[in-house]
Amino acid sequence: VTVVLTHNSYGKSQVRLTHVTRHGERHDLKELSISVQLEGDFAASYASGDNRNIVATDSMKNTVYVFAKKHGIGTIESFGQTLARHFLQTYAQVWAATIALTELSWRRIEDHSHAFISGSNEKRTCLVTLNRQSLRVEPGVSELSLLKTTDSAFGGFVRDEFTTLRETNDRILATLVSAHWLCATPSPDWDGIHRMARLSLVDTFARHRSLSVQETLHAMGQAVLAACPEINEITLTLPNKHHLLVNLEPFGLDNQNEVFVPTDEPHGLITGTLSRSGTG
Amino acid sequence: VTVVLTHNSYGKSQVRLTHVTRHGERHDLKELSISVQLEGDFAASYASGDNRNIVATDSMKNTVYVFAKKHGIGTIESFGQTLARHFLQTYAQVWAATIALTELSWRRIEDHSHAFISGSNEKRTCLVTLNRQSLRVEPGVSELSLLKTTDSAFGGFVRDEFTTLRETNDRILATLVSAHWLCATPSPDWDGIHRMARLSLVDTFARHRSLSVQETLHAMGQAVLAACPEINEITLTLPNKHHLLVNLEPFGLDNQNEVFVPTDEPHGLITGTLSRSGTG
Amino acid sequence: VTVVLTHNSYGKSQVRLTHVTRHGERHDLKELSISVQLEGDFAASYASGDNRNIVATDSMKNTVYVFAKKHGIGTIESFGQTLARHFLQTYAQVWAATIALTELSWRRIEDHSHAFISGSNEKRTCLVTLNRQSLRVEPGVSELSLLKTTDSAFGGFVRDEFTTLRETNDRILATLVSAHWLCATPSPDWDGIHRMARLSLVDTFARHRSLSVQETLHAMGQAVLAACPEINEITLTLPNKHHLLVNLEPFGLDNQNEVFVPTDEPHGLITGTLSRSGTG
Amino acid sequence: VTVVLTHNSYGKSQVRLTHVTRHGERHDLKELSISVQLEGDFAASYASGDNRNIVATDSMKNTVYVFAKKHGIGTIESFGQTLARHFLQTYAQVWAATIALTELSWRRIEDHSHAFISGSNEKRTCLVTLNRQSLRVEPGVSELSLLKTTDSAFGGFVRDEFTTLRETNDRILATLVSAHWLCATPSPDWDGIHRMARLSLVDTFARHRSLSVQETLHAMGQAVLAACPEINEITLTLPNKHHLLVNLEPFGLDNQNEVFVPTDEPHGLITGTLSRSGTG
Repeated sequence: VTVVLTHNSYGKSQVRLTHVTRHGERHDLKELSISVQLEGDFAASYASGDNRNIVATDSMKNTVYVFAKKHGIGTIESFGQTLARHFLQTYAQVWAATIALTELSWRRIEDHSHAFISGSNEKRTCLVTLNRQSLRVEPGVSELSLLKTTDSAFGGFVRDEFTTLRETNDRILATLVSAHWLCATPSPDWDGIHRMARLSLVDTFARHRSLSVQETLHAMGQAVLAACPEINEITLTLPNKHHLLVNLEPFGLDNQNEVFVPTDEPHGLITGTLSRSGTG
Repeated sequence: VTVVLTHNSYGKSQVRLTHVTRHGERHDLKELSISVQLEGDFAASYASGDNRNIVATDSMKNTVYVFAKKHGIGTIESFGQTLARHFLQTYAQVWAATIALTELSWRRIEDHSHAFISGSNEKRTCLVTLNRQSLRVEPGVSELSLLKTTDSAFGGFVRDEFTTLRETNDRILATLVSAHWLCATPSPDWDGIHRMARLSLVDTFARHRSLSVQETLHAMGQAVLAACPEINEITLTLPNKHHLLVNLEPFGLDNQNEVFVPTDEPHGLITGTLSRSGTG
Repeated sequence: VTVVLTHNSYGKSQVRLTHVTRHGERHDLKELSISVQLEGDFAASYASGDNRNIVATDSMKNTVYVFAKKHGIGTIESFGQTLARHFLQTYAQVWAATIALTELSWRRIEDHSHAFISGSNEKRTCLVTLNRQSLRVEPGVSELSLLKTTDSAFGGFVRDEFTTLRETNDRILATLVSAHWLCATPSPDWDGIHRMARLSLVDTFARHRSLSVQETLHAMGQAVLAACPEINEITLTLPNKHHLLVNLEPFGLDNQNEVFVPTDEPHGLITGTLSRSGTG
Repeated sequence: VTVVLTHNSYGKSQVRLTHVTRHGERHDLKELSISVQLEGDFAASYASGDNRNIVATDSMKNTVYVFAKKHGIGTIESFGQTLARHFLQTYAQVWAATIALTELSWRRIEDHSHAFISGSNEKRTCLVTLNRQSLRVEPGVSELSLLKTTDSAFGGFVRDEFTTLRETNDRILATLVSAHWLCATPSPDWDGIHRMARLSLVDTFARHRSLSVQETLHAMGQAVLAACPEINEITLTLPNKHHLLVNLEPFGLDNQNEVFVPTDEPHGLITGTLSRSGTG
């Protein structure tokens, strides 16, 4: 059989890294997980095990550590670009590099100089895609867990033979926000934008009177675009982590939105991309 | 700020389902997890909470159960298509439906009529994408865990200032195969093809003398295309689950590829798509 | 073969519960996971399927929801006792009830009346064991994730043929604290004690100059006993989540405790129980 | 505050190990995860950071690898005893050693000399506890996943104000067996006993007509004691992984035990210990 290798890429995933910056007594801490994927002229390794063009994934891992030492992390948005550029500049056989970075949440214990406590599961994320023509930097957040106990309704949807869900004007709305965005300017204030975008997401979720998860998603995206002029486009993914009202009628009790069963599966999954009008 | 909703979709994820078919005393068992995602004319729900076009994700879940009862599962490839067609045929506002199906592994206990034991974590998967123009069915496997204790080498790769990895002509090669393929014929023998493709993957992994994970991937894909004339294209993803040789020199011992530390992270990640020559 | 059922117990695990208390506009939120285990005169169900003495585990689940509605949660320490007493008072065939409660961490979004954000993975825990003779209430914390970048040493340990670890006077110390304690007074201020015990754990970890994880554990336990006169005994479990210093010498770089690989496995695991002198 | 360290232990957890035995061309493979915990005269390390009696957990890890190389694994029951004895014989300050071993499931690919495929999640386990007076070896299995589609009933249980569960004479019974046992003879044929005990568990689950999970557990334990004269005592833990019958009445369909929702939480949890009559 005659076959063609129509796509290939390879790399190293889950390169974990804790980086300490020492300002005298006072230490800063970042913990990252980084994945590197390269596309390029690697067909000979696939077809015949000729590895002359192959940068070992172990060397990619080394590169991450060497760059962390030499340049520090700065932001994941800048560190990801530095890594991506390195692979294209150093290796002519590389056509594109994709660097996925995840930053875990650590908070300083009070104002202690070198002791930290884990924050939530919320992560700061960035996906950098660089090829010989273009660069794409997509900062974001993931696993941002939000819940509101009221101001969420869902009604007016299609009712047909497959419908058993009742309309509700008062339910728990719980979600685990993933969002990523694109900036118009090449080197914005990544930390400032992240802070502002995240704040808009959380604040809008809290204040919005929701008629559907779709509407909440739209309001959250709109708020980010309004608050962050550098952002041209945002994609949000909101699972609907259903909280089932427990039926207490068999026990002669009236459950007035007090006792719920939180569930993980099945869950709704709502996505949407919002762009600033007039941009692609 | 003026915004445009440039993309949207929503659905229900992780709809779990155990289906029993009773042939008199003898029962058959399938356990699935199914996700449904719809794209369509849903912008009004996002923009203003007008849910008139919204099929509740709860109704999607009901639909899965109703269809399982009415039609049985058959294969996940056929069941996924049935579901996808239903959503497009029933709801004019739906432009596209994506159905992701995962079948867990249960084996009959000896020849017992109704008792079963879990197989491995290996799953049979299928992704069905249907829109008003086209249908795409991508059967596959995931979490197929394979290991060989020899006949795996890695050498001749780029050596530069970032390289510390030694060349080796004998190492453990362990991976967790994900693969999915595309068929030329519209309604092939899904079970037969799955059996044959899976067998080719496992058998080739076992017999191939590997010069790189890339080469092993290529050989596995090639074998599937050779064995299954219905398959036109296959995509494989092979993590390299590194097994580190323990250094026993400090203890005066010579570790001749006997004692290894299996690791989960970081791991190599090798992907490739092979197409039958002369096909897209 | 003649057999004796020398021990038995059964119950319901992972009963999840979200409870909302409404003070007018302002809502409070608690999310719990609860397990109930009963011991008693259940041998007939085991030996011959005579279930007359069996309280269905489904009824245990109902009981948890009914009690949450009727009495609210209050603290997990009090709610667990209420549940345990119910099972012994209602069912003569029950000899002992063990209630394990885990409270997840939710924080109010700023001062919003009904919107919340997940805190960390840290959980508040309580194990209540009640039989016809005695009551034992063991409040605690789990998954409290702490890290310090210096003030941690480890030296002077046994050096023999199995030792390759170097002594260090400066390393990262990272752990995931589990702790539970026993109170002398029957109904103390559970919230106040939890706050104070947790604060002592965190604060001592941060300030202590560690010569071993064992010593840190001891200092943390001692601090809790000093700060909380109601607590008579505390048990701590501290995994040592090793952070490996990356060797950058091959790249001509001197890694001065800047770049580490955080690891999950293998990990040290250090436990200890401290009691107030003169108490059991 | 004056405190006493009333209990202490420490060790290394999750030491992972892949061991290859080479019989010429034909290789055997074992993958283990091992935890070591020591109790002993370690109070000085806790109280004052005096580590003179401390065997570093890193050295424990080294010991595991050295012993695997020197002696091979044999069975986890024998390897665990070898490790435990080493720690007590080598270090006078050690009072007790607890070795927990888990063996993962790998199967040879057909009759290939050196290629393997993961079996199920089922694990072979062993807990060895050795002190200066006594030895306890508890072999077992965990995560043995079994399901039967009929021959399972549950009725005749307590009905009171907390009961909503209907009686059933036909349901799915699904569980994830954990079991461990004790042998009368000091060095039995560990492999043979494991094979026979496991077979009895699986076979009895399949053939037993269950009136309650409790009764199934009892029958399984009894079968092991009948089949394995070397075993004096067995403890089983059976979660009841509920499969909920989907209510299809709203859709005009009669669900005759065909479509179920498998659930993970909440779940029943049934335990019991059976001893051979006349033994402790």
